[in-house]
Amino acid sequence: MQMFSLGLDVGGANTKAVLFDNGKLEKHWLEYIPLWKNLKGLKEFLENVRQSVRPRVVGVTMSGELSDVFESKREGVRRIVGVVSDVFSGEKVYYFSLKGNLVSERKALESPYLLSASNWVSSGLLAGREYPECLLIDVGSTTTDLVPINGGKPDPSGWSDYERLQTKELIYTGILRTPPPFLKSKVTVDGKQVGISYEYFANMADVYRVLGLLAEEDYTCETPDGRGMGKEECMRRLARLICSDLEELGEEKIIDIAEDFRRAQILQVKEGILEVANSHDVDNSTPVIVTGMGDDILGKKAAEAAGFEEIIRMSSVYGEVASLMTPAFSLGLLVSEEALNEGRD
Amino acid sequence: MQMFSLGLDVGGANTKAVLFDNGKLEKHWLEYIPLWKNLKGLKEFLENVRQSVRPRVVGVTMSGELSDVFESKREGVRRIVGVVSDVFSGEKVYYFSLKGNLVSERKALESPYLLSASNWVSSGLLAGREYPECLLIDVGSTTTDLVPINGGKPDPSGWSDYERLQTKELIYTGILRTPPPFLKSKVTVDGKQVGISYEYFANMADVYRVLGLLAEEDYTCETPDGRGMGKEECMRRLARLICSDLEELGEEKIIDIAEDFRRAQILQVKEGILEVANSHDVDNSTPVIVTGMGDDILGKKAAEAAGFEEIIRMSSVYGEVASLMTPAFSLGLLVSEEALNEGRD
Repeated sequence: MQMFSLGLDVGGANTKAVLFDNGKLEKHWLEYIPLWKNLKGLKEFLENVRQSVRPRVVGVTMSGELSDVFESKREGVRRIVGVVSDVFSGEKVYYFSLKGNLVSERKALESPYLLSASNWVSSGLLAGREYPECLLIDVGSTTTDLVPINGGKPDPSGWSDYERLQTKELIYTGILRTPPPFLKSKVTVDGKQVGISYEYFANMADVYRVLGLLAEEDYTCETPDGRGMGKEECMRRLARLICSDLEELGEEKIIDIAEDFRRAQILQVKEGILEVANSHDVDNSTPVIVTGMGDDILGKKAAEAAGFEEIIRMSSVYGEVASLMTPAFSLGLLVSEEALNEGRD
Repeated sequence: MQMFSLGLDVGGANTKAVLFDNGKLEKHWLEYIPLWKNLKGLKEFLENVRQSVRPRVVGVTMSGELSDVFESKREGVRRIVGVVSDVFSGEKVYYFSLKGNLVSERKALESPYLLSASNWVSSGLLAGREYPECLLIDVGSTTTDLVPINGGKPDPSGWSDYERLQTKELIYTGILRTPPPFLKSKVTVDGKQVGISYEYFANMADVYRVLGLLAEEDYTCETPDGRGMGKEECMRRLARLICSDLEELGEEKIIDIAEDFRRAQILQVKEGILEVANSHDVDNSTPVIVTGMGDDILGKKAAEAAGFEEIIRMSSVYGEVASLMTPAFSLGLLVSEEALNEGRD
């Protein structure tokens, strides 16, 4: 008998959904739904998912409540809960809290801060299944989570995004959308330091494309200028960061600049790892689990730079989908187990 | 007899125009025309200006060619020249070159790099009229120009934007559009360092609004979230930078954060001033002319911090319009004099 369980992760820019059938991965979705435009896109997507697969149980985690379409995180959580509960009114819907448990809609609406940015906790639980003592590094398009796992569960110093920005457990850096000027305010060209324009002329996806580290089909966000994702177009965007262009600079210097930014991003994550390791029972023999679309090009590189010896890709344990959308995968698995348990009761 | 001369400064986001009648200021325009959307807006604006005032001579300077609507600066200059020449086909149009002279359309199209970002040269000539030896500081919404003036003329180390980003004569920082995370990657809240989100959640206009240093009507760019410019709305945006909100943080901490960013921006410009002074015949007895919408809240503060003793506001010499749109004002004056001279010939 089919028994579909859905894990949902509603982000500010992307919504991810992973469907399990009796605990087995069945299907997944990655949809670009920028909440700052409106919530209609989210509703339509969820309605389509519901009609096509009819899940029995739904588990929801989120980080999209921070989107500036909402006045406050409280409002954001409530509005997102509203949309999800509305669409899945006939199904059992659980909301995933920062404490790692599943709560009802009523509880979610009562304590919105408990739901805010709980997605990394979900990821942490997945990592903890196989590696009860480890450091999880989830490098996404936009942010990087560093989650110390202890006894199979997340054991961080901070819980809210605001706290985690203090502890470096959340670093606002990712391999696609991060604007390079955020990583350093100068680059070296021909041995000279050059200031940088802060306009959103280019992003880290352009950097990794230029360096041959990102495939065109993995450039899954909008380009800053609305043009294509070809290498030359990425180069043009990077040149603009120093108020120049491809004609004036030439390819070689642009590649140097890209390399400069890549190194800065690895350094940024490395420093975060060292700080988090320092305040936890984590040393360089602790296994590091890397996940997310930047697991290899940024997570692994930063962990190596920080001196860690055992670095494991989440994808090698749970497959590519688990790595690409860890919170939704983990939550889908969790609610599918919950459903199985209930069936047994 | 009326003899209208128009100075035009085509920026990437704003186009400014200043009209002189026989060398006397007559009228001015400041239009938000984001070139990255399209060039139609520019054309319409220029057609309106032409129909309403029928200038005899037009002088054009620009920086909008860097906009990512163009593939290269060369293309940008040519397209902008094309639009202007098209609209003012019956008038005498001069293009202002980096060398400080007025060139024809033909010459402009031949040597587009000579026209690219020549607007600060125009400003420098105005400052040099009254203060032949000085340092000009033009703080705009988006960028800050530091122009050493020698013998009444700009005497910089770099000429193109790319060169000037190296010499610090161009600093990509301004009092409205600059994203605060570009100024520092951490802020101090309650004595603790907090990382910052790089999303364009807030800008420096929000910072200055929160600190009571910017009037609502001077917030002349779009707000990052499309909401209003009231103090509370600005606070909400700033709170979001550290993944928090007004409820969670409270007003006082947000004001501290704003103060942190303001100090960082003053420091950034101060360091630029010291570097430029160092490589030129400029010391702290050299007069500093501050201009632009940030003349007082950023330019003057930074010059004071750098130890300069004589700081003069351009507006006290030439009036508010000269300060608000220095390149267009200066160029309008220049072509009006050119026209007068021609009349005399």
